[in-house]
Amino acid sequence: MDETFGTRLRDRIRALGPLCVGVDPSRELLESWDRGDTVEGMEFFARAALEAIVGTAAAIKPQVAFFERFGSAGYRVLEQLIRDAHDADVLVVADAKRGDFLVTNNGYAEAWLAERSPLRVDAVTASPYLGVDALAPLFTLARENTRGVFVLVATSNNEGRAVQGARTPDGERVEDLVLRSIAELNQRDDGLGSVGAVIGATRDAPEFDLAHLGGPFLVPGVGAQGGSAENVARLFARCPADTVLVNVARSILKAGPERSALRDAARRWRDDLNQALA
Amino acid sequence: MDETFGTRLRDRIRALGPLCVGVDPSRELLESWDRGDTVEGMEFFARAALEAIVGTAAAIKPQVAFFERFGSAGYRVLEQLIRDAHDADVLVVADAKRGDFLVTNNGYAEAWLAERSPLRVDAVTASPYLGVDALAPLFTLARENTRGVFVLVATSNNEGRAVQGARTPDGERVEDLVLRSIAELNQRDDGLGSVGAVIGATRDAPEFDLAHLGGPFLVPGVGAQGGSAENVARLFARCPADTVLVNVARSILKAGPERSALRDAARRWRDDLNQALA
Repeated sequence: MDETFGTRLRDRIRALGPLCVGVDPSRELLESWDRGDTVEGMEFFARAALEAIVGTAAAIKPQVAFFERFGSAGYRVLEQLIRDAHDADVLVVADAKRGDFLVTNNGYAEAWLAERSPLRVDAVTASPYLGVDALAPLFTLARENTRGVFVLVATSNNEGRAVQGARTPDGERVEDLVLRSIAELNQRDDGLGSVGAVIGATRDAPEFDLAHLGGPFLVPGVGAQGGSAENVARLFARCPADTVLVNVARSILKAGPERSALRDAARRWRDDLNQALA
Repeated sequence: MDETFGTRLRDRIRALGPLCVGVDPSRELLESWDRGDTVEGMEFFARAALEAIVGTAAAIKPQVAFFERFGSAGYRVLEQLIRDAHDADVLVVADAKRGDFLVTNNGYAEAWLAERSPLRVDAVTASPYLGVDALAPLFTLARENTRGVFVLVATSNNEGRAVQGARTPDGERVEDLVLRSIAELNQRDDGLGSVGAVIGATRDAPEFDLAHLGGPFLVPGVGAQGGSAENVARLFARCPADTVLVNVARSILKAGPERSALRDAARRWRDDLNQALA
């Protein structure tokens, strides 16, 4: 069985548990850390967050929007965080929610998944408003480089329901269409595939049987956004626990900037998630 | 009547015509210009494209994906292009297709629309998969700063039809829901509003009456993507011509790197569009 992003992630979850820590240097968080909403404040924040979760979290999920606030200078901080995480053997999922036409998605694939790119991560999130099929360049390059793509399916915010719950002429909900498309893509792989799904912790179960995805799940919406470890356990009850990566951001990050407090907060979440998903 | 992005764009279209030139430094285009797929090649490309269209095009539309291929170094080139375009009095629409949760969209709003940002443009494209309402931080900051947001409605690629044509429980198509939401947002403004719609040139007319949008249109899909000036004229027949910005990229850029050839290609497209939309 060939290695894929799915199998790489599964190994990591087996070793460390399902916790992914969201690295979200928003203005509010930087100010609450008393470091100032500056590039230097963001550098400090990113380094502290990473150091605090090494050995506890399977992955980090930097929210690209907050780095982009500072343009190229913010991207340099993100590039450094990605390098440091690789060095520390922590997987990086860039939360970029990219999605464009086929031709343009070649650009996004090169940016986030090509070996030569300074932004090269283990997986990137993608948005299917222009169609799952249009994301093909991301899927192709991910597969070639044992990287992954997490496609937005049903997000944790209620504003998204109208679009994600709309029905195609065949009567299928958009969220189920996306899940089915992901499952088809993953059939190319022998084991757990390289294409994952983003599903918010507090969402109702889709009509598509999540046990048939053939790829990993990324689950936001836990902690400050209202979801609990129990919500996750219920939603993914029929899926192998080692395919579910659960993102927690503010509930951990607000414990900073002191590293030991951050570390303790991350461990508590890991233990809670381990227990609920066991 | 207060100035908005809509009125600023309209003034520019009245003065220069509806042409927007897509600045898309893809690997293919850079190689066809014999400049190499490098940061330096991209710098040359961006500068040449801008210089060739000053006085001819109302706006440029850099495709962020292609700049992002080079990480922070690519973003530095994009920042320089944005500055140069501002200096040359050319509007910049960043084709970023950003879209996330409410809180996260604050980050994208700061990145693309805040005065202090090195990436600050005149308008940015946004994707509504997480809901039009979730884009509120972009709309708010755009309005405050007389900047704009173009929300994806019906894109020029066929892969997007399943999602964009799906129907909500009320029987409304996703594309019509997005158009109606934009129109409601624009009612806050006296004149032409700050929220626009992206509609591909070769799409069928939506059920929502485009004449009631209250904001500008950004129209891709012309030229290399198969649409013609006549397609645009037909689709927007009921809309004021000075609210329609038409993007042409490869059909102009392939004429490079010689500036006079680029300039001639841009002028031909401007004249064609002017004639068809008059």
